[in-house]
Order: sequence, then C-alpha cells, then structure tokens
Amino acid sequence: MRTGVWLMGARGSVATTSIVGALALRAGLTGPTGCVTELPELRGPALPAFTDLVLGGHDVVATPLTKRAEALAEAGVLPGRLADALAAELAAVEEALRPAPTGGTQADRVAAVVRDLTDFRERHRLDRLVVLNVCATEPIAAPHPAHADLDALRAALSGPDEVLPPSSLYAYAAFTAGCPYVDFTPSTGARLPALAALADERGLPYAGNDGKTGETLVKSVLAPMFAMRHLAVRSWSGVNLLGGGDGATLADPAANAAKVASKQRVLGETLGYVPQGDTRIDQVEELGDFKTAWDLVTFAGFLGTRMRMEFTWHGCDSALAAPLVLDLARLTAAAHAVGRRGPLAQLAFFFKDGLDAPTHSLAEQWTLLRDFVAELHREAADEQPR
Amino acid sequence: MRTGVWLMGARGSVATTSIVGALALRAGLTGPTGCVTELPELRGPALPAFTDLVLGGHDVVATPLTKRAEALAEAGVLPGRLADALAAELAAVEEALRPAPTGGTQADRVAAVVRDLTDFRERHRLDRLVVLNVCATEPIAAPHPAHADLDALRAALSGPDEVLPPSSLYAYAAFTAGCPYVDFTPSTGARLPALAALADERGLPYAGNDGKTGETLVKSVLAPMFAMRHLAVRSWSGVNLLGGGDGATLADPAANAAKVASKQRVLGETLGYVPQGDTRIDQVEELGDFKTAWDLVTFAGFLGTRMRMEFTWHGCDSALAAPLVLDLARLTAAAHAVGRRGPLAQLAFFFKDGLDAPTHSLAEQWTLLRDFVAELHREAADEQPR
Amino acid sequence: MRTGVWLMGARGSVATTSIVGALALRAGLTGPTGCVTELPELRGPALPAFTDLVLGGHDVVATPLTKRAEALAEAGVLPGRLADALAAELAAVEEALRPAPTGGTQADRVAAVVRDLTDFRERHRLDRLVVLNVCATEPIAAPHPAHADLDALRAALSGPDEVLPPSSLYAYAAFTAGCPYVDFTPSTGARLPALAALADERGLPYAGNDGKTGETLVKSVLAPMFAMRHLAVRSWSGVNLLGGGDGATLADPAANAAKVASKQRVLGETLGYVPQGDTRIDQVEELGDFKTAWDLVTFAGFLGTRMRMEFTWHGCDSALAAPLVLDLARLTAAAHAVGRRGPLAQLAFFFKDGLDAPTHSLAEQWTLLRDFVAELHREAADEQPR
Amino acid sequence: MRTGVWLMGARGSVATTSIVGALALRAGLTGPTGCVTELPELRGPALPAFTDLVLGGHDVVATPLTKRAEALAEAGVLPGRLADALAAELAAVEEALRPAPTGGTQADRVAAVVRDLTDFRERHRLDRLVVLNVCATEPIAAPHPAHADLDALRAALSGPDEVLPPSSLYAYAAFTAGCPYVDFTPSTGARLPALAALADERGLPYAGNDGKTGETLVKSVLAPMFAMRHLAVRSWSGVNLLGGGDGATLADPAANAAKVASKQRVLGETLGYVPQGDTRIDQVEELGDFKTAWDLVTFAGFLGTRMRMEFTWHGCDSALAAPLVLDLARLTAAAHAVGRRGPLAQLAFFFKDGLDAPTHSLAEQWTLLRDFVAELHREAADEQPR
Repeated sequence: MRTGVWLMGARGSVATTSIVGALALRAGLTGPTGCVTELPELRGPALPAFTDLVLGGHDVVATPLTKRAEALAEAGVLPGRLADALAAELAAVEEALRPAPTGGTQADRVAAVVRDLTDFRERHRLDRLVVLNVCATEPIAAPHPAHADLDALRAALSGPDEVLPPSSLYAYAAFTAGCPYVDFTPSTGARLPALAALADERGLPYAGNDGKTGETLVKSVLAPMFAMRHLAVRSWSGVNLLGGGDGATLADPAANAAKVASKQRVLGETLGYVPQGDTRIDQVEELGDFKTAWDLVTFAGFLGTRMRMEFTWHGCDSALAAPLVLDLARLTAAAHAVGRRGPLAQLAFFFKDGLDAPTHSLAEQWTLLRDFVAELHREAADEQPR
Repeated sequence: MRTGVWLMGARGSVATTSIVGALALRAGLTGPTGCVTELPELRGPALPAFTDLVLGGHDVVATPLTKRAEALAEAGVLPGRLADALAAELAAVEEALRPAPTGGTQADRVAAVVRDLTDFRERHRLDRLVVLNVCATEPIAAPHPAHADLDALRAALSGPDEVLPPSSLYAYAAFTAGCPYVDFTPSTGARLPALAALADERGLPYAGNDGKTGETLVKSVLAPMFAMRHLAVRSWSGVNLLGGGDGATLADPAANAAKVASKQRVLGETLGYVPQGDTRIDQVEELGDFKTAWDLVTFAGFLGTRMRMEFTWHGCDSALAAPLVLDLARLTAAAHAVGRRGPLAQLAFFFKDGLDAPTHSLAEQWTLLRDFVAELHREAADEQPR
Repeated sequence: MRTGVWLMGARGSVATTSIVGALALRAGLTGPTGCVTELPELRGPALPAFTDLVLGGHDVVATPLTKRAEALAEAGVLPGRLADALAAELAAVEEALRPAPTGGTQADRVAAVVRDLTDFRERHRLDRLVVLNVCATEPIAAPHPAHADLDALRAALSGPDEVLPPSSLYAYAAFTAGCPYVDFTPSTGARLPALAALADERGLPYAGNDGKTGETLVKSVLAPMFAMRHLAVRSWSGVNLLGGGDGATLADPAANAAKVASKQRVLGETLGYVPQGDTRIDQVEELGDFKTAWDLVTFAGFLGTRMRMEFTWHGCDSALAAPLVLDLARLTAAAHAVGRRGPLAQLAFFFKDGLDAPTHSLAEQWTLLRDFVAELHREAADEQPR
Repeated sequence: MRTGVWLMGARGSVATTSIVGALALRAGLTGPTGCVTELPELRGPALPAFTDLVLGGHDVVATPLTKRAEALAEAGVLPGRLADALAAELAAVEEALRPAPTGGTQADRVAAVVRDLTDFRERHRLDRLVVLNVCATEPIAAPHPAHADLDALRAALSGPDEVLPPSSLYAYAAFTAGCPYVDFTPSTGARLPALAALADERGLPYAGNDGKTGETLVKSVLAPMFAMRHLAVRSWSGVNLLGGGDGATLADPAANAAKVASKQRVLGETLGYVPQGDTRIDQVEELGDFKTAWDLVTFAGFLGTRMRMEFTWHGCDSALAAPLVLDLARLTAAAHAVGRRGPLAQLAFFFKDGLDAPTHSLAEQWTLLRDFVAELHREAADEQPR
C-alpha cells in the first residue's frame, strides 16, 4: 500500500524531523521510539509500513532540507550523523517539495495545490495521499458567511477576498484532490461546516487539531487523576516558554489566544468545573526547539486541607511531534483505505483539541484508539483477497 | 447495614483524621472531597452510608483523640472548629477504643483482640466489622516456616516466639473473629500463605497493601503516559521528605526498604523495563504531617532526543489517606456482604502494591474498580427482598 | 525617643501584620524573626525601641483591624492566638486610624492629611513621625508639568485637576507636616522633582521604592552569583502567581507594568546586559496572601555549554513585608533624628528599585546598610548629652 | 612568565575540558565565559596569560586525550568542532602526559612524580609549575600518626605502608619539587600538618578544597540571603543526581560522606545554626557529565509564618569546573611569583570547603578575592624592573 505523506510547512522543524525520521526508520538507522503505532497494542497489517511512505510537501520558504536538518542537528534535535547518512534520500524528498502557491484568487491557489497533489500521487503511483498541516499556528480566522455553506464557499473563493485562512484553504484543496486531511496545529483547518460538507461529499476522513506534545499531554493524565481521587482542584496555572518558529508566531496575541484556548479545554471538560488560573505562552528565542512548561496546581483534599503540585516539562517539540505526524499519516491512510469518512474522533489521543473528542482523559483516549486500530486491522484483513 | 470500622493505630494521624472526617460527614459538617466512593460513578446502594459506620480501634498509646485532633488542627491538617463541633461524637468514639494487647504469647494477644472485636460487634449490634491497619510501617518481617502453613502457624503462636509481625497478628485475629481485613501500610499484613488459608477457611475478603497517596499516585498516571506515547524513560529518581510519625519509622532502614520497594514496583511493571534511579525517603521532622516529594524523569524521544520532566508534590498524607480509609471500609464491607472472599484485586486503585493487582496504571485500576463496584451494586440489589 | 509610625493603607494585609507584629514584639509575645534591624550587626541605640513605636494611619476602607487580623489568622498569615491576646492594644490602634480624605481639591486633601498627622504627633507627644505607604500598587501616573517644579505644583494642587497620584499626594502632605516618607510600593511616591525640592526645603529624609520581599530578593543574590562566576545568562523568565489585594490591583495592566519594570531592573544592572525573557504577574485569587513565583534561568558556561536553573518561591508577602516596614520606620526615624535629608540610598537593601541605589546586589546593599547603621549609631551617641 | 599547569587526573572530564578550553582560548577560538580571572575586576598583569600556560599531567588510565574530547563532544560538554580544530595542539599536550607511577614504596612513587615534574619544568623552561588535583574523589583517608609530623612522614614513606592517600602523596611530591599545589577535590590533599610543614619549609602556597560548581555555589548565596533577612531556616534538604566518573566514585559510601560533609558546612557556618535536613548524592549514570540538584528550603518569617523555596540546578560539572581550574592555576602561580606561602584562604571563593576560609558567603569571598588579586597586581608591578 504505497502511501503519500504531503506536509504543509514541509521545511519547518516538525516536518524536517518527520522526514529525517521516516527516512531513518526506512533505512533501519533508528528505532521507533515515540511512534505510537509501533507499540505492540497497535501494530498490525492495516497500517502502511514505513517503507511504503513517500514524502512530499509545500512550503513558502525555500531553505534546503539538508540545511534545515543540519540546523536541527546543531540544536540537539537530531543526531548529526543521521543527516549525513541520509543525504541521498533527503535529496530525493527535496525534489518532491513544491513552493506554496501565492498570488491570484484563493480559487487559483486551490487549483495549484490540487495540481501538485495530483501530480505527486501519479508520479509515485500512490494508493493514496494524506495531507498534513504542520505549519506554524495561524491567528484566529475572521468569520465569513461562506464558511457555513459549501456552494457559497465555492463562489466566494473565486472572488477577491481572502475567505479562508491558509489551513482551511489546504483542507479544501486536499478534499478536492481526494486526500484525507490532518491538522496538527490549532489553526482552523477542516473545522468549518462547508469543509465538513466537502469531505462528506468526497467520502474522506479527516483529523485534528493541535498535536498534544507537552504540557497538555501531562494535563491529560493529571487532571483525570485529581478527578478519580475526588480531589478539588482550586487553581491550575501554567506558563510555556518556547523559542523556535512557534514561539515567534505565538508572540502574536491572536495566535496565542487560539493556542491557550485549546490548552485549557482539557481541564474544564475533565474536572467538570474550571479551576482558577491561566496558561501563558511566552517566547524565549534562546530556548530554540526546546520548550519549558511549568504548571502549578493547588488542590483541596478531605476536610479542605490545602495541597499543591508543580511540574516542569522540558521537551523538544519537534522530537515529540514528528513521530506522531507519522502515526497520524499511517492511521488516517488506514482509515481511508477501509472507507472511513468524516472526523476521526478516535484519534483524540493525538490532539489537544480533538475533533468530536468524547473525552480529554489520555487513558480513555488510548482505549478509544486501541479499539479503533483493532477494528482497522480487522476490516483490513477482511478486505484482503482470500 | 450497620458497619463497624476497627482501626489498628486508632490514635495515629491517619486514623484520627478518618474518625473526625467520618463524624463530620455524618453530621453534615463537611463535604466528601477526597472520598472516591462518593463520586457519581461509584455511589450506590451496596455501600454502607456514612451514618451506618461505627468507629472503634486499638492503639498502643493512650493520648486522647481530642488531643490528637487538636494537634492536627494546629498543624493545618484539620479545621480547628471541627474538633470543637464534634466533641461529643469524639468522646463516644474514645469510649470504643481499646489498648492494644501486649505481653503473653502471640496466641494470648490474638485471643484478646478477637475478644475486643467480638464485644464491639455485639455491643453495637453490627452487621459486620471491617478491620483496617493504619499503624506506622513495620520493618520487613523475618521469615518463619509457620508462615506457609495454617496448622503450623496455629501451633507456633502458642510458643514463645514472635512468629508474626503485629500487622499479621491482627490479620490473623480479624479473620478468626470473622472480620475482613484491609492493610493500608506496606507491612506484611495478610500476605502470608497461612493467612490466605485462614481467610479462605472463613470465607472472608481482604485487601492491601500500602495506600497510594502521593508520589506513587502521580507515578501511576505518568508512567502509563510515557508508555502510551512510546517514550523511553531513561531514569526516574525520587526523593520523599516527610516528618510526622511515618518519617520517624522510616528512619529505620528496614522499614524504609519495604516502602521503597513498593514505590518502585509501578515503574517496572508499567514500562516493561526498570529505568535507572532510586526513590529515597528522608525524615525532616519540621515538615510535620506534610510531605514533599520531588521526582526527576529523563526520557528519550524520536531519534534519541533527550528530554526531562520533574514534579514536586506537596501533600498532607493524613488528609489524602483518611477518605481512602473510609472508602476501603465501605467497599470491603460491601464485598463481604455479597459474599466475596480472598484478596480483592479490584481495589488496586487504592494501593501502591495492590494484592494480585493486574495493572499499575491508575486509569486501568479505575476501570477495574468502577466495574467491580457496579457488580457489587447489582448483586446487592439482587439480594434485596423484593 | 517616641516615634510615630503612620501607615497609608493601614487596614491592608501588610499594615495589619505590621501592627499586630509591632504590638506582639512590644508585649514580648513573639520574637524578631524577619526584622533586619534586630540582627546583631545592626542593633543599637540609634534605633527607636519597639516599645517607643506608636502606630496610626489612614485607609479608604473601614473594616476594623480586629476583623482584618482574624481574616489573616484564618489564612495562616498570623497565629490566631495573637489577635486575641492583643485585643486591647489593637483597639487602641483602631482609635488612632483615620479615614483617608476624599473629595475637594488635592490641596484640600493635603490639608486634611497634614491635620491628621499633626494631631497624631501632638496627641501622643511624639519626637517624630514617619509616614509609610503600604497601599496597593497604583497605575503608572500620568506626567504633569507641575511635577517638575515645586511652585507650579503648589499652584496646581488648588486647581480642579488630579495633579498627583495618591502616593505622591501623601508624600507631599508628609513633607509639609515635617515627616519623613517611605514608599514600600512601586507607586510614584516621592519620586518627582517637585517633591524632592520640598523634602530638601524641609530637611527631611525619604526612602523607597517597592519592598523587596520575594522573587526579586532571590534575583538580587542569584544574578550577582552568575556575574561573579562570569557565566553568561541567556534567558531569565519569571512568573508570579498571587492572590490577595495586590493580585487584584495588578490585574490592571498599567499597575502590572509598573511592578514588572521594577522587577527586571536588577538583572540588567547586575549583569551588565539584559537577558531574554519576561516577568509575568498573574492573579490567582485562591492563593490568598501567599504568592508563588517560578523563575527559569538558562545560562552558558565555558565553551558555550548550556545549563539551567529554576526556582520556586512560595512566600507570604505580608509576613515578609511587615517586619521590613517596621525596620524602615526605625531606620528612617533614626536618620531623621541625626539630621539626614534627601533620598536614603543606603536603604536599597529593602527595595526592588531603591532611590539612587548604587547597586542591585543584595550583598553589596547589605554592606552599605551595615555601614550606614553604624554611622547612625555613632552620630546618635555623639549627640547624647554627656 | 611561562607557567606550567600539571593536572593529576589529566585524562578525566574536568582535565580534558580544561585542556581543550585553555588551547581554545590560546587559539582565540572561544571566549572566556566562566573564567573568573577574566572579569574586569580581576584581570591584570600579575596573572600569567593563557598563551603562557603549558599543560601536562599524570593519569592512571591511558585513553588518548582526543578520544576523551570526542566523548565529551558527543555528550554535549564541548562543541565538536573544537577538538577537530585543536588536533595538533592536543597532540602536543598528549606528549606531555605521563602515566601515574604505581608500585614500589610511596617514597619511590614520590620520587617518580618529582622527576616528572622537574623534567617538565626544565624541558619547557617554565618559570614555575602549579600542580592541581582534578582526580575523582577519594574515600576519607585513614588517620596515621606520621600525618602530624614531617620527619615521621619522611621515614614512614619508605616503609611498606600506604601512609598517604594519593592526593596527599601528590601534594608531598609537588612541594618537594618546589611546586604550589591546588586541590579541586574533597580529598585530603595538603590538609595534613606534616604537609603544611613541608610547604612552609619550601615557601610554597597551596589551596583547596573541593571546587564549588553547583548546588553549594547556590547555597553560598541563598544561605546569606536568609541570614541577612533574619529569616529562620527550618530545614534544608538536597539531592544531587549525577552520572559520570564522579557519580561512580561517590557510590562508595565513604567518598560520599566526604563530599556531603563539605557540602553542608556552608549552612551551619553561614546561618549560625544547623537546620534539619540532609544532602544526598545519588548516581544516575544516564545523566552523563550533567548533574541535577534539587533543594528544598523551609523557613519561618515574622510571627512564625511558614514558607518554602525550592530550586533545581542542572549543570555540567566539567564545563563549570574547567575554567575555575585555569583560574586557580593562574592565581596560584601569581601568588607564588610574589612570594606568598601557606594556605591561600583568599581563594575560598572557588571552594566548597576553602582552607582557612573566614566566611562561606560567596559575596564576602568575592570581596576577599578581589582585594587579594588587587594586591597581587600591585606587588607584581612593584617587582617589575623599572
């Protein structure tokens, strides 16, 4: 099952790490640490093998992948020797990257993206192609009446307005080209009624939003812990210090607001009430691709006794996100292969703000995911020619 | 269903907090924060109401309960006004406390305990009586051949040797008196083949060991998080600073070793490998009834990138333990009422080192507990006269 | 040497703690922990004894002191028994409190304050009276041309404008009444050329600004440590979570900005360069009178190796500030007694943003303070009749 | 002023980093971050220039320096490019290294060391040669009567006993060869009356013990902060997690005890009382050359209010120690040049447990150091031919 993985933001840190990692896994130069789909509980025939993945993507910048890989090696995100050992393979992916279309109407840009996707699928004789958004976070998009209606949207795209934010334009193009779409960012992506209608029309699955890689991951196990023990969380305050591209984007208050909202959701929905406190995101360029989050939780126990917990998470976002991007590509491809359509709520495990997520508890999301993957394996086996 | 709750170590911090809390709940002076059995998912008719609980116990010391309650209020564990408001109720419990028997052979002491239990059950016309060990941690007990065989044990108890550690002597006495037994400490308790045989002979359930109230509670959600994300935990080091009685006991290296072993179990069993690092327990008298734990976890992600997490837990052990003691009394009584016998593996949620625990993941233990309690409610309903 | 201590914001947490503490010290009910002037290096005859202090003040609210003291006891800031034991003394101070004047022109309000100060000094036959501002932080004041010139200011005060922020109006009134003025807040206070001219005209000393009680205190020893070791601080980020009145005030972005600016000054001035990172102040009402600050420092060592340090400070602002308020009252009174005038740069030890502070290193500030106090003692001894 | 720097343990992490760093400074490939003697306050003509330093040393192992440097680059301690760029210079130092003598009586080994030192000094026409101990920590040495008397020691060294621990044997040899001696470890080194007598006889200065690079450095500014503010430290507990060679050595309880004792000294001597709590050192191999220390400080303020502070230090010991080793070599050489002899108490700034240290406050130690270096510069200038 030859499966294409098309990355929007293909020269960014997350994408570059995903690409180097996929190539390294294919070449047997690294193990699958961080790849959830390689756990014994999930592994199986429905998922395309790493050797079946073909990588491509769009980006607005043109820095060569090898340059990006070197910078990541310098920053301690990648082992330096990997980029060297995979020079030829990286060059091949480099050839498959295309400049993100700019100029013209949004309809023009959609057409250009569709063309690039179709070309890629045909040139590599792919069974299917999954589009994933790993760009930097967009500002919260301005509402537009055409968001609610597919026909109105089609009409508006040919006009002069910027009707859709880039993430949604890509989702539109992906669906139009018959590709499932995954949004690893908190941007709008496929979360518009018109786009849901389009995905439905084309019978395509999609997933998102906002990969859960750090502080929120920890919250998604700690908040249920407090809930299961019937402890009353009084306040939960967090600060996220991050450098890199995401830090710069989030210096924009609107993008920051989008991210913070998706980070706090887990608390209210898990605890059943919203404790005091905020989550802050601050850029500290010096931290590079690493991120430090600190959270303070104050809580009351039996008879009101006050207690507290704090944690510091010092993670490398790219190293945490990249294997999940590959997991999502494999899982979405497998879901597509057996005919799933619409939002994949079962992938909530991967997201801060999962589409239709029935729970924010990581453990419950894990159970959903495990059961879902087991079904995929069963269905895939059933579809095999006997 | 009038249910007796007999506490070994009835004048200790955990017991005193349990007693004050149970009285406060009964009087409507406090809410059920920290009581797991009062969560909507677990609440139901099989569990004895707080108003059905009758409290008693043994202790080697004689400090009045009101004195202990005042000291706990001073230390910030209890609201001062509670002890005042419950003066009459506390006096009633005071009357029900008995000195722990000393002297004579172990058989003599067993007989004295059985007598006290039987008297209490009769005087208060209890439907059943649950015995719970909330004493300080014992040193690891010396092995003895009679531990493996009930007949040999019976014979040995009448001899001059201290065959059983106190926790096991109490389990023996409880079973002999027809009472379920719960061990909230890491001491040996019912964990001897001869005692399992005795419980079986009498058709009694029992549970333990070592209430999970702080650092290990956090571990039991964080270790599964790392496992579910396929992240490689390289080291996990912890230090526990605690004052109070438990701190003093654990200054004894043998008791410390028992506690540490039960704390580290969760890691190996959840991750499937044992990361580097140790857990330390140090006494810092100044911390009083509060405990500060600090853990450092180093882990590797995709392509070997090194990351780290640390957390500090600042909890009040008595405030965390007391509601669980009441939960365990209610659950064990309910299990007894419907005829359960043997080790209650489904109560692993409450323990660092649960008897026959099939998992160390808190979320999985929660599922087990929820299903178990649902069964108890069903069975209790079935037994009701229609 | 009977010395009056006049507190602006006399019913706030800091003032109430200062008052209860001063009364408790006078009554021998507590020790001088936290009082810098009681260290062997500073103690001496120039300083008025605690028994010589007479307390009074203004406030805009009217909550009785005993009520405030009870609330602080409830919150764990004061031992409950103290307020009870000092009931009579507290009532006496209560009588000396006056409502802060409102309405009329600023000149009218100045006159009312001067009248209250003069009355207090006369009624209690005080040798001198020190005015201290312990109100909540004001927003940054709007500039006004009259701030630069004493005559212009005098004229403007009789007009309809709010020329001076309250802290500066009080400084003006204090100087007019012949009282030294100390500002424990980051508000403008005496920091206007017109007020400096007035203090000079009256021969009065003054001090400020912004008591150094928590995160900045720690910074004032850690930043010099990095500097003395020639380590390159790359980023220094901090978050302050606080409840209480100050938290509420600082929710106002303008007040927050004033505070943050005074918090970051220590870094640039000690290190000689400004590292990346910000200091945040967030209100978390639940934390009450306690404050939690977390700081992350990243730094480079020899050959550029990256390292990091983080600290959490969990302090009670009122308990940290109150003894310093008494210290400042004693020191400023002593300076006044021997004829010092103008800004007391030697008191930089107490402030985040000391007037004319020659250094932000706590150790160097300590040396300055020690030498200054030694001089005061010498001068006071010289003035004694032989 | 050609100055030799002879390192005991010359192939260890600290020594290798010192050597690579000295070569890089000489070649202008790095800046002096971490070098205290390059601060404006200390720089001056009395100190030998980096270009005047000539490096050599002993080690019991034979791993080539370039191999060690590569391993350190891999571990993130050194930039990889440095070792490559300095290949020729490293080879030259490699030639100057000698195997640590073994076998024979201690007198034989002393003679061999003296021969190596003398050869090195002559071959490189050095004006002076400083010997520095950067070996792993030794177990606490057994007392021996000859330690107290130089003549007895001379006699005993020719006998069959291991009279001196290796660090002291080296101090003996260094003094015999007319070289100043610096001990960067907590080992005994020159701290024996017989060795003090020998240094005195030869008119040599010496310094030590135990480089202050991490947790103790922080303690040496925080403990004075609490003292200066008259806050009552109730407990101070610390845990040090470290990998690397030092971690392995400290797994030996006796070496651990030596290190811990020197770490706790700062508290008692700075505060005037010893708070509760211990310092732990645990090996966690995975941490490599990095070290994580966590400290919890609980303290009481005015009226007894309880507060707490915690900090985490994540440092690279080699990167912190290496520039100090070069500083100590330069300073000791400069002291020798102007005729200082005996223990250099003014270098306490560099040590956990400085010889004759009059204070444990870093700021006071800094003042001592600054004044001392100013004197050296003055004396050096006076000695210059006019």
